[in-house]
Amino acid sequence: MSKYAHLYSGIMKAAKPSKVNQIMAKQKPGAIHLSGGFPDPNYFPREEIKEIISYVMDNEAATALQYGNPAGYPKLIEHVVEIANSKNQKTKNENVMVVNGSTESFGLMCKAFVNPGDYIIVEEPTYSGAIMAFRGHGANMLPVPIDDQGVIPEEVEKVLAEKEKEGIQVKFMYILPNYQNPAGVSLSLERRKKLLEIAKKYNVLIYEDDAYIEFRYEGEELPTIKSLDEDGMVVYTTTFSKTLAPGVRIGWVIAEPELIKGLTAAKMATSLMSSPLNQALSAEFSIRGYLKNHVEKSKELYKKRKNYMLEALEKYMPEGVTWTKPQGGYFLWVTAPEHIDGEEMLKQVVEAGVSYRPGPSFYVDDTKGWNQARLCFTTVDEEAIDKGIKTIADVIKKLM
Amino acid sequence: MSKYAHLYSGIMKAAKPSKVNQIMAKQKPGAIHLSGGFPDPNYFPREEIKEIISYVMDNEAATALQYGNPAGYPKLIEHVVEIANSKNQKTKNENVMVVNGSTESFGLMCKAFVNPGDYIIVEEPTYSGAIMAFRGHGANMLPVPIDDQGVIPEEVEKVLAEKEKEGIQVKFMYILPNYQNPAGVSLSLERRKKLLEIAKKYNVLIYEDDAYIEFRYEGEELPTIKSLDEDGMVVYTTTFSKTLAPGVRIGWVIAEPELIKGLTAAKMATSLMSSPLNQALSAEFSIRGYLKNHVEKSKELYKKRKNYMLEALEKYMPEGVTWTKPQGGYFLWVTAPEHIDGEEMLKQVVEAGVSYRPGPSFYVDDTKGWNQARLCFTTVDEEAIDKGIKTIADVIKKLM
Repeated sequence: MSKYAHLYSGIMKAAKPSKVNQIMAKQKPGAIHLSGGFPDPNYFPREEIKEIISYVMDNEAATALQYGNPAGYPKLIEHVVEIANSKNQKTKNENVMVVNGSTESFGLMCKAFVNPGDYIIVEEPTYSGAIMAFRGHGANMLPVPIDDQGVIPEEVEKVLAEKEKEGIQVKFMYILPNYQNPAGVSLSLERRKKLLEIAKKYNVLIYEDDAYIEFRYEGEELPTIKSLDEDGMVVYTTTFSKTLAPGVRIGWVIAEPELIKGLTAAKMATSLMSSPLNQALSAEFSIRGYLKNHVEKSKELYKKRKNYMLEALEKYMPEGVTWTKPQGGYFLWVTAPEHIDGEEMLKQVVEAGVSYRPGPSFYVDDTKGWNQARLCFTTVDEEAIDKGIKTIADVIKKLM
Repeated sequence: MSKYAHLYSGIMKAAKPSKVNQIMAKQKPGAIHLSGGFPDPNYFPREEIKEIISYVMDNEAATALQYGNPAGYPKLIEHVVEIANSKNQKTKNENVMVVNGSTESFGLMCKAFVNPGDYIIVEEPTYSGAIMAFRGHGANMLPVPIDDQGVIPEEVEKVLAEKEKEGIQVKFMYILPNYQNPAGVSLSLERRKKLLEIAKKYNVLIYEDDAYIEFRYEGEELPTIKSLDEDGMVVYTTTFSKTLAPGVRIGWVIAEPELIKGLTAAKMATSLMSSPLNQALSAEFSIRGYLKNHVEKSKELYKKRKNYMLEALEKYMPEGVTWTKPQGGYFLWVTAPEHIDGEEMLKQVVEAGVSYRPGPSFYVDDTKGWNQARLCFTTVDEEAIDKGIKTIADVIKKLM
């Protein structure tokens, strides 16, 4: 027994080793990674970053290297206001808070709204990082199913009505509207409006996570739920992690000033502020138009890879395996027949030098989804995608 | 009443506006700031940062701009091991976790060890940012007095014995051994050893925050509590915020591997990882010897300013006002007669264009310490120090 056992928090004591991670830890170096949500590192904007850091050191070092405003670096806040308003999010400076990647906002939302044991709604499946953060704050997650149009509003309402009957106030619903992580599906316009109505009816916040919004490869852009909201019911978050680079760790939140004030107090108590240096870099990268160029180039590349992965799935996967056809984002979601031994599937794929992120990572009940896989099509090139999909398909065939 | 009131967490509901902040919000632009814990921005290592970012983009961009290991960037972890071992902290890679400034470690310690309502020991007075973070996790803080040798071990033991009698396990004691923030005092070697004995006896962790360790201006360096610990009872944290720049937001934690594992799980659920870019920058800045040079230059400057501030206090302060004489760090701690109207003192000083950080910020019970002030001697030059101290002294004289 650990000599520290008497000191751990309840949440720490409740944490159990993840079967998924135990299997994935056996990954060999040089594997083909379809598991992460990673941009292709070969295309990182190296020269632009050099240029901007040089500019920031010559012109803004006294503020960019110093402690700063917890809500964000003024230049970045102003620029975020422009980005947000270009999406009709009716945003002013006091509606913005900068975070260490949208991940940081998960915990801040809990600090501001969730007492241990409080209830929140999540999609099923939903983003694994959010599950981890919500669990780390003792939130009770109520999963609501999604289909190929995103989360099903009637199911959301059913859960809210039930909790209302029990006298329980659900705190927020965590919604991934565009190219959902992991499933790759997008929430229809009608459902976005419907969710807002429900939020208003039950007086519960919508926490809209839109990390992949800039990566639409086909179809028409839909309005964010935030931009449709007339009643201050939406807390919106997105990030530069996919558009500039994950290693910069800068994202932001848009919400009503009162909520931003509370979230900023929580932010101060968590990390004081996001790196002013990285905020200055992100702001300048976007202001100079480098962000737009970089996203355009990345989109071209990733769209090809997505189509290539879809073709490879067609080519290699046996009858009985299905997958989503995303209009954007980084991921698609593969479902093998339910009876398949998913643990064995993951073990054999890892053994063969390929990785995917298995279903259980995206379920609150992590015994579910072993026959499912999130595949990322952005990180590696077409040759690797081909080899990766063929490997997974071969393992599935063997196990079917 | 707020339309969101039914949604807030208990901690958010309990938060009350700070009188100190309300007064300090009236600060005019161009004021002389003796309030922060800020390095002098005129001396930030601009050219070195340009050079290093350029190097990192040419040689490590694929990892520095990507998602990375939650415990830290491998090159930085290895370098931190060297730093730690140069201080006899008996450290291997698995003893290290990187954080977003040591501030982030406050919350992670709570996530790992503190259930809302659990008890921890803090010094009185203690660092305001730590109070804020501990409060933000619902920790019950038990203040223990300090004197000019730092925290008083007998008082620590008294509190632990009392809680033991009540059947309560205190989770950790938060200790600032060197040039304490805010008081500027240092913990004697004997007391460091005594605290370790007490920690062992009561089976409670020492959480050692050593942000200012590199800034000793006189006297002999004392061993860190961590380096004296043979029983894995110390979690040590320090930061590059003072030695490189606050805006980079990189610090680290040293602890037993089991504890690092738990803290890293909490870290993943909080911010995934600290910026690999900033970690690469920090590592390279130190490896190249720029850190050592920069600290040497800063120390020379800050030592002069400390002495200058001490002289100004001698020169301007009326009888009845006392202050500490720190051997290092950023701060000294001024105590005016108890009967003085501290709120009025702060108001008038702010009105006169000077800032200090008043006592209540550093007390768990923030009605205490209004006659006290933390003064930072590193941020501004001698002329401003002179003017600042004279202004504060004039206000005190008027109010005495």
